[in-house]
Amino acid sequence: MDLSAIVEHGAFDLMCLNKYCRSPSSYTVTSEGERKSSSERKSSSADSGVSLKERKKSAEIVSGQYGLNLLLVGVALMLAVGYHGPAVKEKHLLSFITALMLGQILWMLWYIGRRVARKTAPLEKDARSGTSWIRGGITIMALLSLIMDAFRIGRYIGYRKCMSAALVVYPVVHALHTVSQVHFLWFHIKDMIKTYETFERFGVIHAVFTNLLLWCNGAMSESEHFLKDHKKRLSELGYVNLSIADHGPHCNCSTRACSVFSSSLYYLYPFNIEYHILVSAMLFVMWKNIGRTAHHHHHHQQERPHVPRIRGLSAGPALGLVALASTIAVLAVYTVHVGETVETHDSAISMFYHHGIVLLGCMGLAGALGLLVYRTDSRPPDRSKSASRQLDQEMLVGASVGTWLMCWCSVVAAGVTYSSPSYRWVALAYSLLLVLEKSVQNLFIIESLYRTDEAAETQRPTHAPRATVSTEIFSVSASLSSPFRGDREVHRQVHRQVCVCPRKRPATPVPTAPSRAGTLGWRRRVVRNVTVFLILGNMSLWLLPAFGCRPQYDNGLEHETFGFTIWTMVLNFAMPLNLFYRMHAVSSLVEVFQHL
Amino acid sequence: MDLSAIVEHGAFDLMCLNKYCRSPSSYTVTSEGERKSSSERKSSSADSGVSLKERKKSAEIVSGQYGLNLLLVGVALMLAVGYHGPAVKEKHLLSFITALMLGQILWMLWYIGRRVARKTAPLEKDARSGTSWIRGGITIMALLSLIMDAFRIGRYIGYRKCMSAALVVYPVVHALHTVSQVHFLWFHIKDMIKTYETFERFGVIHAVFTNLLLWCNGAMSESEHFLKDHKKRLSELGYVNLSIADHGPHCNCSTRACSVFSSSLYYLYPFNIEYHILVSAMLFVMWKNIGRTAHHHHHHQQERPHVPRIRGLSAGPALGLVALASTIAVLAVYTVHVGETVETHDSAISMFYHHGIVLLGCMGLAGALGLLVYRTDSRPPDRSKSASRQLDQEMLVGASVGTWLMCWCSVVAAGVTYSSPSYRWVALAYSLLLVLEKSVQNLFIIESLYRTDEAAETQRPTHAPRATVSTEIFSVSASLSSPFRGDREVHRQVHRQVCVCPRKRPATPVPTAPSRAGTLGWRRRVVRNVTVFLILGNMSLWLLPAFGCRPQYDNGLEHETFGFTIWTMVLNFAMPLNLFYRMHAVSSLVEVFQHL
Repeated sequence: MDLSAIVEHGAFDLMCLNKYCRSPSSYTVTSEGERKSSSERKSSSADSGVSLKERKKSAEIVSGQYGLNLLLVGVALMLAVGYHGPAVKEKHLLSFITALMLGQILWMLWYIGRRVARKTAPLEKDARSGTSWIRGGITIMALLSLIMDAFRIGRYIGYRKCMSAALVVYPVVHALHTVSQVHFLWFHIKDMIKTYETFERFGVIHAVFTNLLLWCNGAMSESEHFLKDHKKRLSELGYVNLSIADHGPHCNCSTRACSVFSSSLYYLYPFNIEYHILVSAMLFVMWKNIGRTAHHHHHHQQERPHVPRIRGLSAGPALGLVALASTIAVLAVYTVHVGETVETHDSAISMFYHHGIVLLGCMGLAGALGLLVYRTDSRPPDRSKSASRQLDQEMLVGASVGTWLMCWCSVVAAGVTYSSPSYRWVALAYSLLLVLEKSVQNLFIIESLYRTDEAAETQRPTHAPRATVSTEIFSVSASLSSPFRGDREVHRQVHRQVCVCPRKRPATPVPTAPSRAGTLGWRRRVVRNVTVFLILGNMSLWLLPAFGCRPQYDNGLEHETFGFTIWTMVLNFAMPLNLFYRMHAVSSLVEVFQHL
Repeated sequence: MDLSAIVEHGAFDLMCLNKYCRSPSSYTVTSEGERKSSSERKSSSADSGVSLKERKKSAEIVSGQYGLNLLLVGVALMLAVGYHGPAVKEKHLLSFITALMLGQILWMLWYIGRRVARKTAPLEKDARSGTSWIRGGITIMALLSLIMDAFRIGRYIGYRKCMSAALVVYPVVHALHTVSQVHFLWFHIKDMIKTYETFERFGVIHAVFTNLLLWCNGAMSESEHFLKDHKKRLSELGYVNLSIADHGPHCNCSTRACSVFSSSLYYLYPFNIEYHILVSAMLFVMWKNIGRTAHHHHHHQQERPHVPRIRGLSAGPALGLVALASTIAVLAVYTVHVGETVETHDSAISMFYHHGIVLLGCMGLAGALGLLVYRTDSRPPDRSKSASRQLDQEMLVGASVGTWLMCWCSVVAAGVTYSSPSYRWVALAYSLLLVLEKSVQNLFIIESLYRTDEAAETQRPTHAPRATVSTEIFSVSASLSSPFRGDREVHRQVHRQVCVCPRKRPATPVPTAPSRAGTLGWRRRVVRNVTVFLILGNMSLWLLPAFGCRPQYDNGLEHETFGFTIWTMVLNFAMPLNLFYRMHAVSSLVEVFQHL
């Protein structure tokens, strides 16, 4: 039942993962042979070169198909487990996943061993892949996953009389897998593999899909648990009398901590789920980098003056923090009230919708403000084609589809409902606003990605000569017409004055620069504030569903119109996409902010 | 229930449709400004140019989001109708679709009117979009759709006392829509719109998503009908006692033809469904072409000697026709036998699997043979990056995901089943072979797309200088090492000898060319035969499920392991993808064949 979502995500995430394969800022990764000189190309058309490239391309397709099928076998087992039939049990699924994890551990050991043995030959690195803040985040999530494994082992000890051994082997291997994988991520994720390509390609894709399968399994367990909780709550409130099948262990716990372990587990799920999806994204970048060559570019960033991160920030972070704080309050109140009595249940849902309407309204306005600011900026944005930007764009819109479907279902349900609860019209308004907010935010993020200079300079590695030409043209026209670019020019001027000139002309003032900076910096300041506010807003909107605040389950409107099965299916499709969307929006906005 | 598939297809098809946006062979379509000279670029950075490009890019994103949301509103209504609840009825859904169709008709009228009014200004055309064989096929399918509309109107007349008026307005408007749309396709699909871009962009995207929604609606009705039939058959065979809810009209038919109309309708569904998906693909290409410029290239094809289409064909078409004929026989026998008695039911399923194993085995071997032939060919294939080839590749693999999931579910089910029917192991073998066959075929098609010269020469429009360089290098090395390329060189030589030389030296024989052609043409002959066989094989494998030969519903293995709900969901996800895969494979293979 709650498995429908899984099916699509295999295909979807494959698409999604491409995103993390961005062109780096200080290095450029290009496919082998793409930027080769004519003489190099001549030599590579000799037989050995051809067969190597042949093998590489075939290995890419074959390994991709291998990985997809691994995932699909796992999904098939998951679907069978989801039915709770007599033939396939959870232990079978966990054994399969354990085998995949062991395979990945062995491969990583082989890889690390070989790297250590050949320490003399330094490997090319993709400098941009796996920045330290992403690796730090992953490490924290990995630690929480380890705690989860400990809880699982603790629960097994309590129920060991009636639980299959597979249920303790799984967390032990998972812990081992987590530790070795984090080590691998810290020291090898930037590697650009050149030798033994075929074997290493299969190893990396195996790792990618093992993590994707672990993500699917986590998402399934989480939503199954959520659904069970939801049904229990409905029964307690007297709404329905659903029979809740208990698929837990059928014996008494021999220790006192079992229930603590079981209930704590579910607070750790969101981190475990995000951990696996992030790791598979990073490994996917590594897979794409196999056989590629890193090209060193000029470090544009170091040439630019350092702009303090917090400069010009005022309303954005303030409003954003208010949003975040109020969201946490709403989350706490909702979680407590929704299961108490029918009255508090309805008021909790109303509160959620009112809070959502205010937050979404502000976010929509902020996005619209950002777009308006861009409209007043006559500097032509960089419109050259870039595969990674195109992918970013497709992913944002693609991940929005889940929420949009959910929203339109809510609109239909609120429009035609017979029961007409108190929150009917706020639910309708909330859903419409959500559609609007995502549309505006997508436009803003896509526009921003095309506006950031760094992106323009580094995401066009294979057209470097043309990029230079157009950059020159842009700065010529911009110095005449564009205050936005002018702002930066001024910064650079000021910087030069401060750092270089004083020795020569210490007393000479810079007559125009400060006033121009004062009057012209407003666009950038506004966009920075908008970006920070949107980052915090999206984090708030991630927090709510990630920690169980999902009124779409509780409000009853959609159940009435769509029935339990269809609506659960829609939610299981839309919810993970929605969580992914918010995460992806935050990471895109952080990137935009760093280049502003 | 049978709606789960719909949800994904919205997103999936968006991805898929890109495919039909191929670079043409004799013209090249590039985004405006992409191939502009430096001077042109300078002028376009002036204010008016900027704002035009700005508006264009924004219009693209906004119109895309508008179209997606149109579709999702429709899907939400469809889900509500699928629940058969009290609030949303079929008439509401059909009214919504009718409104969308009317909108499209009005837009098309406006567009055609404007074209007629400005007849003096000839519009640029994308020569490759909508080749005549595709338009011819669409016209035939449109005619069958018109017959379907007539049947719908006939059925309404019979039941007019108890049917909503929306149910007769819908087929009338649909017929009008079909006629005007086919007219539009014949005379305007190649247009490359340059003026009034924003309004025309919204119109075209509206048309794209209206057709997609019609496709979704058709697929839903078809699978609902199939499921009802299936349940009826199961009840008749005494397997289960399912209550079949009747959502048909609740009064007696006043004419004698009602049942004929109702049953004939369902034989026309497959054509109606394929019609709408093809039209939306073509309109999507038109949408992508808005604001682009056609560049004229050399007509390479006309320079090449004409190779008769049937030259060198022998085993491929023969085996393919045998496969097609046996498939039609299996289809007929299966359809009759599966619903008779329990014995014929089982034997029909066994027959299907045995036939499938032989056919899939042959197709897998043919694909492997083709790949082997490519391996013996030392000519380096064109490995330059091409967005459309990349998309083709992603689509083939993406559409395979559906079948692969279905296959792995069948493998799990056949592996663990308790009931063990006679066809258990053939079902297992069939599923594994299907996974293998699709993998091999994907590899073969992708490899072929990279091997065809026309593709290599015309799909790299923006890197024309580089392409020329590499082509020169390739032909230098190829003339030394590659018999495959040598073959073509010989053809060209022969051609020159025949067409040009005879006037000068009519009696001079060409000593080496014929013998070289005789010994070296075997690779091309083998690949041509393999391609033709695969075309016919894929058509066979399209025919079977399209006309109701779906043992996955009938064999009972998967129902036992996954339960009715989950398995129906998997099939509703996988079946349309499978049909689309076969169609897409045929069209890709036809393209490969045309360039061989």
